[in-house]
Amino acid sequence: MIHLIDSIGSMAAILTTTSFIPQVYKVYTTKQTHDLSLGMFLLFSLGLLLWCIYGILLMAWPIIWANFITLGLTCYILVMKIKYG
Amino acid sequence: MIHLIDSIGSMAAILTTTSFIPQVYKVYTTKQTHDLSLGMFLLFSLGLLLWCIYGILLMAWPIIWANFITLGLTCYILVMKIKYG
Repeated sequence: MIHLIDSIGSMAAILTTTSFIPQVYKVYTTKQTHDLSLGMFLLFSLGLLLWCIYGILLMAWPIIWANFITLGLTCYILVMKIKYG
Repeated sequence: MIHLIDSIGSMAAILTTTSFIPQVYKVYTTKQTHDLSLGMFLLFSLGLLLWCIYGILLMAWPIIWANFITLGLTCYILVMKIKYG
């Protein structure tokens, strides 16, 4: 049962981390960001930064790497949103 | 120090949970979802559903409520994306 729970948690982490890749690809190819909310990507990126700090303080590597990768993806979207409006 | 770490984690959870509210508001007011990636909201919602299941199996209420609220917000965006294209 513990193994199943761990597997579900790992799959959840992989999905929520990699889900931003299709959005990054869309922004990269279309250069269109009008419908994206600046507030969302600003708050979400700030939240991910705090998750990274939280992980570092706890020395919890899964929290650090998962949030660090997602932060990289959302920061790209955020910069493109600021650039293209 | 533990109190500070907990506070940072709580603030991170609040930010990543509520960050979707500005996107929901934008979709609700503009009815425009063209620049949003269907793949992103599909994968992210699926990931959040797995986080909820993970939280339920562990009886970890902060994981359950934070992901359940976010899931509600992303499902709204997902349905609107399917509706408006």
